[in-house]
Amino acid sequence: MKRAILGLILLACFGVFPMIGQTESSAGSAETDSEITSPATGKHAPAPTAAQADSPDPAHSGAAESHAGAASHANPVSPVLLGLIIILVGARIGGRAAEFFHQPAVLGELLFGVLIGNLTLFGFGGLEFLGSDVGIQILAEIGVILLLFEVGLESNVKEMLSVGMSSLMVALLGIIAPFALGWGVSAWMLPNEETLVHVFIAATLCATSVGITARVLADLGKLQTREAKIVLGAAVIDDILGLVILAVVTGSIQAANQGTELHTAAVAIIIAKAALFLVGALVIGGWFAPRMFRLSSRLRGEGLLVTVSLAFCFLLSYLANAIELATIVGAFAAGLILDEVQYRDLVPDGREHALEELLQPIAAILVPIFFVRMGLEVDLSTFGQVEVLGLAGLLTLAAILGKGICAAGVLEKGLDRLSVAVGMIPRGEVGLIFAAIGASLTLHGQPVVAPAIFSAVVIMVIITTLITPPLLKITLSRSEKAKAQRP
Amino acid sequence: MKRAILGLILLACFGVFPMIGQTESSAGSAETDSEITSPATGKHAPAPTAAQADSPDPAHSGAAESHAGAASHANPVSPVLLGLIIILVGARIGGRAAEFFHQPAVLGELLFGVLIGNLTLFGFGGLEFLGSDVGIQILAEIGVILLLFEVGLESNVKEMLSVGMSSLMVALLGIIAPFALGWGVSAWMLPNEETLVHVFIAATLCATSVGITARVLADLGKLQTREAKIVLGAAVIDDILGLVILAVVTGSIQAANQGTELHTAAVAIIIAKAALFLVGALVIGGWFAPRMFRLSSRLRGEGLLVTVSLAFCFLLSYLANAIELATIVGAFAAGLILDEVQYRDLVPDGREHALEELLQPIAAILVPIFFVRMGLEVDLSTFGQVEVLGLAGLLTLAAILGKGICAAGVLEKGLDRLSVAVGMIPRGEVGLIFAAIGASLTLHGQPVVAPAIFSAVVIMVIITTLITPPLLKITLSRSEKAKAQRP
Repeated sequence: MKRAILGLILLACFGVFPMIGQTESSAGSAETDSEITSPATGKHAPAPTAAQADSPDPAHSGAAESHAGAASHANPVSPVLLGLIIILVGARIGGRAAEFFHQPAVLGELLFGVLIGNLTLFGFGGLEFLGSDVGIQILAEIGVILLLFEVGLESNVKEMLSVGMSSLMVALLGIIAPFALGWGVSAWMLPNEETLVHVFIAATLCATSVGITARVLADLGKLQTREAKIVLGAAVIDDILGLVILAVVTGSIQAANQGTELHTAAVAIIIAKAALFLVGALVIGGWFAPRMFRLSSRLRGEGLLVTVSLAFCFLLSYLANAIELATIVGAFAAGLILDEVQYRDLVPDGREHALEELLQPIAAILVPIFFVRMGLEVDLSTFGQVEVLGLAGLLTLAAILGKGICAAGVLEKGLDRLSVAVGMIPRGEVGLIFAAIGASLTLHGQPVVAPAIFSAVVIMVIITTLITPPLLKITLSRSEKAKAQRP
Repeated sequence: MKRAILGLILLACFGVFPMIGQTESSAGSAETDSEITSPATGKHAPAPTAAQADSPDPAHSGAAESHAGAASHANPVSPVLLGLIIILVGARIGGRAAEFFHQPAVLGELLFGVLIGNLTLFGFGGLEFLGSDVGIQILAEIGVILLLFEVGLESNVKEMLSVGMSSLMVALLGIIAPFALGWGVSAWMLPNEETLVHVFIAATLCATSVGITARVLADLGKLQTREAKIVLGAAVIDDILGLVILAVVTGSIQAANQGTELHTAAVAIIIAKAALFLVGALVIGGWFAPRMFRLSSRLRGEGLLVTVSLAFCFLLSYLANAIELATIVGAFAAGLILDEVQYRDLVPDGREHALEELLQPIAAILVPIFFVRMGLEVDLSTFGQVEVLGLAGLLTLAAILGKGICAAGVLEKGLDRLSVAVGMIPRGEVGLIFAAIGASLTLHGQPVVAPAIFSAVVIMVIITTLITPPLLKITLSRSEKAKAQRP
């Protein structure tokens, strides 16, 4: 490993030093030089990190130019290239290190992200752009879309519906229990806060971030288990219920501020939209997909299968996003709909690659970006705020116990309930989104989620996200042993 | 084809309509709703096109947030997803249509770009974001990097050096001839302009945009011909010479403005940097690559080969960009350096995929984005400016004839000189970059490249870019016949 880490450092230096050297040169260079390398050339990216982190304007002003648009090609891509080098190599080394300690690779990617995300604590800056660069952010988002698309491909609609009731029960219990516990914790720890604040804090505990769980299940080759399908189905339902809760809570807060009633219309609209999307995706999508493939089979050409499939995946992701669902819900639905029988005639003769195999190289590049970036979001300094650690600890407990209760929602016999419960634990970015909204809302002039509460929620999200991979690994192997011993 | 185009329209509508509907809703929706879907949720992208085209701030302000950063994931990705759907499907249909007319697929991708890039002329807006969205721009740039990386993989350093002299001669003649002709045209058409203006216009004719040629050669499976290697080598040299010319011309213009002497130091620095990079890439890179693979072979895991190879490709692209060369020069060098013998032990047992095969799906997605975007840069309205058409026509003639002369640089016997010459014709984005710099420079208070001249240069770029695929197809098949007839 030492030499591997040396390799990372080597690469990082390779990347960072010329950049620094360049900053100086473009700073202290002759006037002609600096003019020659004006942004218009687009080939010169003065201190990309700074440029991106502080203000991405150059990139955009460039892109805005009608004809010189092409000129700005190289400009915004420079930090992305540097970021990709660091993330790709680091994620690999982190993943390998995790596997070395018998952990899922994703944990290593997360921790690598945490590491480079907190280098500033050790006085080393220069890598913040990895967290703020919009290009890397978009690649990361496409990465998690691809991951859930792949996960969806491993299953199909019938299989999901067969565990539908369990998924629904797990999702409902996984919302109600953390909500109740969260409310209790909040009411006990923050007696002076208003009820709506307790409600909002409780709401932040309800979300489920399926990315982590899906990735762990994939790392461990467990996607085909019924437990996996229950968790995935429940996560989709959770995303919808989360939207509704958010609508209700924020709605009531505004109502309280205005002294008016809660806008139930908004809630109804959201529920209708979400239901419409899922039904539409499964019914219309199921009707559309085979025709799409038959139609596109007239196009031929290399990589046609990948192109059409991804276009379909991106379409459903976009539509999900358009109705405020997570893009990954659309991507997962797209994966469920697509079936090998549909695209068999698109597989070039002789080369019998399944779609999964064709997607694998793309996923290998993009998926780790998402998890490294998720790690980047972790701000270890929040753990330094002693005053919030108490609330954070209890919230984390409530979050874990709350999802633990949802194990009771598994109706099938002989399934590993504990693994289902653990799979529901991570809050990931969804919890952060809730908290961020709470921080942006005010109740009677006070922010609903005060900075201290926000930090506590962040800690809860960090812990629930980071403990899931090892925990899930344990529970799954435990249940494997149990099943093996069963007569 | 009709049904295929219907398919495109269908998909496009699928994508655009919900977006439009959404704009209205988010515009005229109840206060609660609009609050719920505040940027913080990141799941709601009010009118992505507008948001991106006018001001990408929301995306960035989101990304800038420390913890809620994750919240802004979905926000900037929404227009990218929509763009990808339109571009992937459109490029496929365009490419197929081109092949239907026995043209290289890339021509169809370019023309599809031209089509959607000029829909505004027919009063249909809403797709401009495809040209201005920074996410799509970055994906396009990575696409052309991948293309040149693939092209580089098809060859190696020894093969390139074996045609080195021819490449050098072709590159030099391909610079001198267009420069002289361009100067002549400018001096004749614009007698009242100063000498330096003529020089600058002449300089815009020197650049070579290798992307188009490389893609056409790939489409026609001609990358292994010596003609191909000569063109590619010449294009790399051209990129360096172009930098030098740009340095000299801009330097002299500033000197003229300040009444001082030309900063030769800047020029020397650029030449030194470029030389250092090429030698460094080939020597150090050649030493580094096998060790990198041996080191990384300890990491194992799915897609390791792709990850390490792309990290290496991105590294050289980044370094090339850092010294103001085009990223694609670095990517091409990376491809030249990598050899199957080096990564043989990274190929997972049983699955004997060559790196090229693993890259193919990624390239199939990203490469067309570059060419569609290049088509988007084409502003047909420039052809409406009758007053500039004369200058444009003569410049185009000079650009084509000038590169035609470089056929004489091919030293080998029995090669198809004409194909080499045609392969050097496209100016693509490089010519636009030159022109854009000229427009940004002033000589005695006047812009060096006046708007009319800029339009003329743009037209020259458009024509040289669009005629190359069909021309090259003709010359190559012609020479094939000739070789076949040869006893």
